[in-house]
Amino acid sequence: MKMDLKPYIHNAKYYETDQMSIVHHSNYIRWFEEARIDWMNQIGIDFREVEAMGIVVPVVSVSCRYKHVTRFADDVAITPRLTLYNGIRFAFSYEVRDAHTGTLNAVGESEHCFLRGEQVVNLRRAAPELHQRFQAVK
Amino acid sequence: MKMDLKPYIHNAKYYETDQMSIVHHSNYIRWFEEARIDWMNQIGIDFREVEAMGIVVPVVSVSCRYKHVTRFADDVAITPRLTLYNGIRFAFSYEVRDAHTGTLNAVGESEHCFLRGEQVVNLRRAAPELHQRFQAVK
Amino acid sequence: MKMDLKPYIHNAKYYETDQMSIVHHSNYIRWFEEARIDWMNQIGIDFREVEAMGIVVPVVSVSCRYKHVTRFADDVAITPRLTLYNGIRFAFSYEVRDAHTGTLNAVGESEHCFLRGEQVVNLRRAAPELHQRFQAVK
Amino acid sequence: MKMDLKPYIHNAKYYETDQMSIVHHSNYIRWFEEARIDWMNQIGIDFREVEAMGIVVPVVSVSCRYKHVTRFADDVAITPRLTLYNGIRFAFSYEVRDAHTGTLNAVGESEHCFLRGEQVVNLRRAAPELHQRFQAVK
Repeated sequence: MKMDLKPYIHNAKYYETDQMSIVHHSNYIRWFEEARIDWMNQIGIDFREVEAMGIVVPVVSVSCRYKHVTRFADDVAITPRLTLYNGIRFAFSYEVRDAHTGTLNAVGESEHCFLRGEQVVNLRRAAPELHQRFQAVK
Repeated sequence: MKMDLKPYIHNAKYYETDQMSIVHHSNYIRWFEEARIDWMNQIGIDFREVEAMGIVVPVVSVSCRYKHVTRFADDVAITPRLTLYNGIRFAFSYEVRDAHTGTLNAVGESEHCFLRGEQVVNLRRAAPELHQRFQAVK
Repeated sequence: MKMDLKPYIHNAKYYETDQMSIVHHSNYIRWFEEARIDWMNQIGIDFREVEAMGIVVPVVSVSCRYKHVTRFADDVAITPRLTLYNGIRFAFSYEVRDAHTGTLNAVGESEHCFLRGEQVVNLRRAAPELHQRFQAVK
Repeated sequence: MKMDLKPYIHNAKYYETDQMSIVHHSNYIRWFEEARIDWMNQIGIDFREVEAMGIVVPVVSVSCRYKHVTRFADDVAITPRLTLYNGIRFAFSYEVRDAHTGTLNAVGESEHCFLRGEQVVNLRRAAPELHQRFQAVK
């Protein structure tokens, strides 16, 4: 199955800028999260329901490489791409582009796992219906 | 009983600045929280233990009046003063001063209550030992 | 002249929550800013152009009263209302409502002035075209 | 020359937590910045003076790998180590440990360059006295 997923649009906020007059680099890590949750929504996974099942999804690692500054009020289009999913772990790559000019502002990656309590779980067994949604876009 | 409470010192972070090259105004609200938690520590209340008792302490209102800018790397001294405590609600006023020059950068206030679940509780009954610590500095 | 201004919609982010499982109270202050900048956009003022004219718009005071929690992924509708404008200072009130149920989550206020360098300026003289846009919605 | 640099201590703030009841992962990126600026202070570089010389120091890349959660009120000790410095670019690695137990909570890296205006500059020529301070700890 192929799904037509839309990039996530974020309008850079004034409070996200720093005294270099650019968006502070830490915010891109937050934008990745916004884009990731939007991506899940698009494939039919409401993250609130995941947590309501007692499953938490910690970030195992994150990275970002900055190519071009984002400034206050810029619209950026963030495109997450699922690069790994095996029921136990998953990973995304991200592109952050100016939504109007297409300039590549940043690229990044994140890795995640599924926990119930302190225990790593396999989504295939812990939540088969969620597992299938991930599988469908692999 | 009189206690000799120390102001809370915060060193303004680079990521707290915005493109006006000053600390973004929303951070003062966060500094009030830091100062409030430090104040509780000083009177013998570890906020982790409060929450471990199932008691949460939401903010009912907050306000801040900005007098003078704070800049990156400035040390500010935040002095909370308990202005109300009756077991059910409490309130603080805050002064934010440059720790070196004494310049008054901001003043503010916050109001709080105690909840267990969704229920307002009286600390006098819910946690008498915490109640007494508040009473002691009233 | 009457303008038909739309409330500003914000979707509460995961990173805006705290360990009470609600949106941290400091974020409402940031949402007021988002809503204020959106409001200016709607009346034809691009805040980037204001700053490009050498005019900065500091926050003189801010307050918020919390009525009902906002949770992760909730859509809130923030309605700013200009309560004062005299060329030198202006003020807004804000209502934050659940965008779907209409529940009032918070109300607030902010006051602002116009500076060029460190000098307070009257927008009537400093930027007559911006002054008129404010006047039109008073 | 060997210098005896101290780790940077950060006390995890309530507002840094999220609804997983842990410090949100984006804050570690901010802590790296805090630790980096403290490190510069320790080798005699006041970051305000760097910027006053018209030099800005953007982040070229950043990464973090999360090993163990940090919770509200935990003290973490962040140890930056200069892994590259050649006048044009520099890089740090970071260890984030619980300040009391020594548990390794996270490791990370960041890369930076020096700009004046939009131009990459070599600190050796742009600011020889700063260059020497970096050289001394290489």
